[in-house]
Amino acid sequence: MKISILGPRGTFSEEAARKFFKTPELLLSEDIEEIFESVLKEKADYGIVPVENSLEGSVGVTLELLQKKDVKIYGEIILDIRHSLMALPKVGLRDIKEIISHPHALAQCKNFIKTLKASTRSSHSTAEAAREIAQQKLKNAAAIAPKIAAQLYKLRILKEDIQDENRNQTRFLVIAKKDHEKTGRDKTSIILGLKDRPGALYEALKGFALEKINLTKIESRPSRKALGDYVFYIDFEGHREDDGVKKVLEKLREQAAFMKILGSYHTTAR
Amino acid sequence: MKISILGPRGTFSEEAARKFFKTPELLLSEDIEEIFESVLKEKADYGIVPVENSLEGSVGVTLELLQKKDVKIYGEIILDIRHSLMALPKVGLRDIKEIISHPHALAQCKNFIKTLKASTRSSHSTAEAAREIAQQKLKNAAAIAPKIAAQLYKLRILKEDIQDENRNQTRFLVIAKKDHEKTGRDKTSIILGLKDRPGALYEALKGFALEKINLTKIESRPSRKALGDYVFYIDFEGHREDDGVKKVLEKLREQAAFMKILGSYHTTAR
Repeated sequence: MKISILGPRGTFSEEAARKFFKTPELLLSEDIEEIFESVLKEKADYGIVPVENSLEGSVGVTLELLQKKDVKIYGEIILDIRHSLMALPKVGLRDIKEIISHPHALAQCKNFIKTLKASTRSSHSTAEAAREIAQQKLKNAAAIAPKIAAQLYKLRILKEDIQDENRNQTRFLVIAKKDHEKTGRDKTSIILGLKDRPGALYEALKGFALEKINLTKIESRPSRKALGDYVFYIDFEGHREDDGVKKVLEKLREQAAFMKILGSYHTTAR
Repeated sequence: MKISILGPRGTFSEEAARKFFKTPELLLSEDIEEIFESVLKEKADYGIVPVENSLEGSVGVTLELLQKKDVKIYGEIILDIRHSLMALPKVGLRDIKEIISHPHALAQCKNFIKTLKASTRSSHSTAEAAREIAQQKLKNAAAIAPKIAAQLYKLRILKEDIQDENRNQTRFLVIAKKDHEKTGRDKTSIILGLKDRPGALYEALKGFALEKINLTKIESRPSRKALGDYVFYIDFEGHREDDGVKKVLEKLREQAAFMKILGSYHTTAR
């Protein structure tokens, strides 16, 4: 099973891939758009893209590509973002003079970093920091990266779970050419385009309320096409083939300026 | 007028401060929480915090601090994110072998970078990249940073507007101990806590529809307090002292699990 993810190896994207697929054959992509393309051109069976992070919010690029490209959501993966400090095998905490990582990871581990007497340096990704230490045999440096990077680059983990905040999660979507068949515990994502006028959203949500369908996410974003108009990203419980959901979606299709069903997929317990 | 912003100097936060206040006296903070604290403890008159970016979505940390801390929104600033390539005064495009910037800026200028024969290196911030080039007199390197950083570090701008995407905007909020008086062109932000059940949001939006109040943003985020419950960040047109708005907010206060008025402020034309 070929799975397209954001490269390099050893990042949280790889962790997500290994959580969802038992033995993924990884196809490394340079950016999120390349992941969409590799699924569309059938270079990969599935793609894994980050869609929201509890600290940083939605990934705008992913939301826009979901709107533009003809892919479906096949699944979701909720990953706890846990950072580890890692170094060459014989290096101890006291040897560390420099800590290397992506600026976000450095920011997320600020309290821990303050306890060490070390400077910080930025890298393009957390995995790249680990690779640099391994390849250049840096004896006085440590990387902040996901556990999986230590395995990959044969580094020793000096400390696990060094992030300041314990509720940092990233939600990844599994994208494919088709969405998931009904399982009984499903969720559906849609994009809705509405005119910018009072009551538009209220009227659009009526059907969900009548059919007692629970929304799990709603987010408005200004539409790129016409300034002042809005698109809404809405997730709700149920499969697009459920009777109640079908009814609501048919109604919305008449009512809204546009609607796109992104797909139905199995929910992940939070 | 003392304005607390994210340091270092020379970033988009400084650009935002100079757009809103004519002659801000800058107080540099290390992170977003410090900006909130400096306003609360009256070390600064106002603070400027990023709240959403068109490519990356909402800044979760800011949204959460708005919920937790007793500050008000006094204004908003919408800034076009424009990147420039800058180097030492006598350096030309052909001399550049290395481009230094924050990973986000490097990613946002990928197409432009491909046209140069240069490697890339990450820095903690865009401004720090500019400072490094100036202070270490790096002759074969250029920084990607906001224009304002070139002025600050006496660098020469080799090329302006090198970002791939032309609609990259960041919305900043001006926070203070009080919100803004009524101007006639106002906007109000609230946080609403609702139980996780079908129809809850629909019922909450009824008042806005009846009073013909236009929503300009809605975003749900899982509540930190109780898994499964939701908080909604809602922006709408009008001032909290307008009669219609008052009516809606009074109703919501009875209806919702909790409500916090973040403040009313003057809108910025988009």
